[in-house]
Amino acid sequence: MTGTEIDRLIQHLAKLPGLGPRSARRAALHLIKRREALLEPLASAMRAAADAILVCSRCGTFDTADPCAICTDPRRDASIVCVVEDVADLWALDRTGSFKGRYHVLGGTLSALDGRGPEDLNVQALVTRAAAPEVVEVILATSATVEGQTTAHYVTDRLADCGVMVTRLAHGVPVGGELDYLDDGTLSTALKARRPA
Amino acid sequence: MTGTEIDRLIQHLAKLPGLGPRSARRAALHLIKRREALLEPLASAMRAAADAILVCSRCGTFDTADPCAICTDPRRDASIVCVVEDVADLWALDRTGSFKGRYHVLGGTLSALDGRGPEDLNVQALVTRAAAPEVVEVILATSATVEGQTTAHYVTDRLADCGVMVTRLAHGVPVGGELDYLDDGTLSTALKARRPA
Repeated sequence: MTGTEIDRLIQHLAKLPGLGPRSARRAALHLIKRREALLEPLASAMRAAADAILVCSRCGTFDTADPCAICTDPRRDASIVCVVEDVADLWALDRTGSFKGRYHVLGGTLSALDGRGPEDLNVQALVTRAAAPEVVEVILATSATVEGQTTAHYVTDRLADCGVMVTRLAHGVPVGGELDYLDDGTLSTALKARRPA
Repeated sequence: MTGTEIDRLIQHLAKLPGLGPRSARRAALHLIKRREALLEPLASAMRAAADAILVCSRCGTFDTADPCAICTDPRRDASIVCVVEDVADLWALDRTGSFKGRYHVLGGTLSALDGRGPEDLNVQALVTRAAAPEVVEVILATSATVEGQTTAHYVTDRLADCGVMVTRLAHGVPVGGELDYLDDGTLSTALKARRPA
């Protein structure tokens, strides 16, 4: 019924989180109708992103430079490292503007159910970073879920001999809540009220 | 906080219907994490669509050929033309597989509120098509809204001298619909249009 290129566009759009087959068709039509205003710029933005985006070898976030803009920003405090599960959590924390240190992305949580063990997380690099003399504090900003807390315990143990203060986000993060979905106020409060692990 | 290419990707994704800023960030991260499996193919599919898609000069749908695959398909009945508001409606009808004629896309409805008059719709081309000797019936498949019905009346008037039979989609209880959840208008119409069992 439709050209192959249209079908292919719909199929690929349907793989985006939050879009099913029906909304993918709507989105495709929306784009096709506004070819110059939307479809062309989005196609170019995707191509540019695919070509330019790197993983920061220091902290594990996505950026167009390696080391990333956060790791190389001299105005940021190198003595505090905030450990997050995912890049989405880093973005969420950084949007609050209340943390001016550096980050470390674990790349997930420990999960017996999903078969993710310590070797699947970016922990060894964190231990190495934390052992550097300039690092004074490591904030564990994992989710307030069972898996997030388990991961925080594990990371705390691994950091025991690094001579750094290990802190946790304060209560205020709703139990069961994922960082990426929290409002900025709750995140800021939780950061400010952090306590020793 | 993030590379320019990431920000730009998020901004453009946020313009898709059904995605806000937050879900656009989620979608962008989802794509970046699966660069080869998702981001690259989607970027290519968008580029291919932007380059290949045309508007059929006969019926007004989108396709990669002009006239489109439906207008040139010899297995489809050229004597029946189904008039729809939008390409999305054409796709919806054609997915049912129960119509084997041709289509005509108006490109909207008449709307005093939105300032859309007859000159904004693809009606003159329909009148010309309907006047051709092979066309016997024109089905008006506009929405069952005030604007859709107004448009249907207007098109009916314009087709008066073409010597074609003009029909409308039946109104009634949707298949699978529960009476209790239907609006009064639909129920009244379904009662009035009742037919022998």
